[in-house]
Amino acid sequence: MPPYSVLTIVGVGLIGGSIGLAAKKRGLAGRVRGLGRSEVSLDKALARGQIDDKHLEPQDALRDADFVVVCTPVDQIAGQVVRFAALCKPGAILTDAGSTKATIVADVQRALPGHVHFVGSHPLAGSEKRGPEAAEPELFQNRWTVVTPTPQTDAAALAQVERFWEALGSRVKRLAPDEHDRALALTSHVPHLVAAALAAALPADLHDLAATGFRDTTRIAAGDPGLWTAIFEHNRDAVLAALDKVEGRLVAFRQALVERDRNTLEQLLAQAKKVRDALGN
Amino acid sequence: MPPYSVLTIVGVGLIGGSIGLAAKKRGLAGRVRGLGRSEVSLDKALARGQIDDKHLEPQDALRDADFVVVCTPVDQIAGQVVRFAALCKPGAILTDAGSTKATIVADVQRALPGHVHFVGSHPLAGSEKRGPEAAEPELFQNRWTVVTPTPQTDAAALAQVERFWEALGSRVKRLAPDEHDRALALTSHVPHLVAAALAAALPADLHDLAATGFRDTTRIAAGDPGLWTAIFEHNRDAVLAALDKVEGRLVAFRQALVERDRNTLEQLLAQAKKVRDALGN
Repeated sequence: MPPYSVLTIVGVGLIGGSIGLAAKKRGLAGRVRGLGRSEVSLDKALARGQIDDKHLEPQDALRDADFVVVCTPVDQIAGQVVRFAALCKPGAILTDAGSTKATIVADVQRALPGHVHFVGSHPLAGSEKRGPEAAEPELFQNRWTVVTPTPQTDAAALAQVERFWEALGSRVKRLAPDEHDRALALTSHVPHLVAAALAAALPADLHDLAATGFRDTTRIAAGDPGLWTAIFEHNRDAVLAALDKVEGRLVAFRQALVERDRNTLEQLLAQAKKVRDALGN
Repeated sequence: MPPYSVLTIVGVGLIGGSIGLAAKKRGLAGRVRGLGRSEVSLDKALARGQIDDKHLEPQDALRDADFVVVCTPVDQIAGQVVRFAALCKPGAILTDAGSTKATIVADVQRALPGHVHFVGSHPLAGSEKRGPEAAEPELFQNRWTVVTPTPQTDAAALAQVERFWEALGSRVKRLAPDEHDRALALTSHVPHLVAAALAAALPADLHDLAATGFRDTTRIAAGDPGLWTAIFEHNRDAVLAALDKVEGRLVAFRQALVERDRNTLEQLLAQAKKVRDALGN
């Protein structure tokens, strides 16, 4: 018997669709329901076997759900979790897949009805692509998912959410919501800003000269501007602090260049190479 | 009959080894000679079929060469071209594969003996990898090579150098040396600095949280610090100017964040996405 009788996915894009594929491939739920606002996306997810049935009405999708994953843009998650929780049966567990955590978790905890549990999650498995067309069943395999409990989090619900991501192939790490946000500002949000700054600075007549290095460095700048604006708003303070750190390094590079200080320049580059080499491909 | 009787490659690393493989695969030369300082690298190149014979002595490698490509670090190229030119037969053509052009071309033109020709080249086909182990015969296929003639450049030699890169599968673009350097500052050198700044700002305890986006954005920071220090020294002024442009964009992002100006932030991201989407993969 599958661990969940009904798994409901809210938002069937890249992440939601991949959760559906992974859950069905691994026999994680008797039924995978998809809830969304776009019938076109729901139909694509259905046709690709990511969900078993599609719903535009929350009530039908949530009434009998044991486990709910909300995979919508970060500025919609908390409101939906709170609203949808009211439609769930007692003991249901809700989580999300948002790229920011502190605002979402605080907003949910302030208003969550008492008969269900919520645990914040962030699977680090995005890409610049979007939509159910881009979904893959192995998207979470060997990737990290951060879960963000707080002192109020129910221990049994936390354990279930961790098992859920592990069942999809992910490794799981616990961080407090604000620790998560400070970390992601450095590992994801500021890299996005910097990639966007590089891309935007490229004049049209130099496109031919943008080779592999430029393409790699700026790839994430193709991400959806609306989704990313919401991420930056949620994580504004940590992003500004992380931007300071990266700009501090750029100032050091600039100074070494201005002063023709060959040794410092080479040391700065060697230090960066050491970090990048340690990451592997 | 191959177009060149003897092709000599100076420096058999990623670029030199790939030129050898591509030239041999396409029957471009009767004989491909490799000249280097490291017997280990020369032996690897020989074992991989990148060159037909190996030389530690310039004279033996260059005496009968029709075409010479110097694939050494940018701070060595001009001196080697001038020194090796003296060992070449009349009418021999020399080119290079350096990532900077203005300094190299000026230094060569000041001192080149009159019986040979030099044309500066830069195949945009590097990577963060190094050495003959990383060489591939299709490295130049559908990539751009920039050739950098000046008013003193011999027209017939320029045409031959262009045909050489085209024969390896490359598309060729002509730019003045300083135009090349200004362009590459924006498309390659500043992206490298920015990638290095991001990598260096990553603390060790956050390595697990550096996912695909971070890895793509910082991949080039794994490049060789010595090679890149020489590139930055050669192209210092253009790099500083390009860094100003990119930092100007970062300032705009920062201001939009500080002022919680959602519309401007989304517009800046949309502008960057438009450029990145136009580049394709």
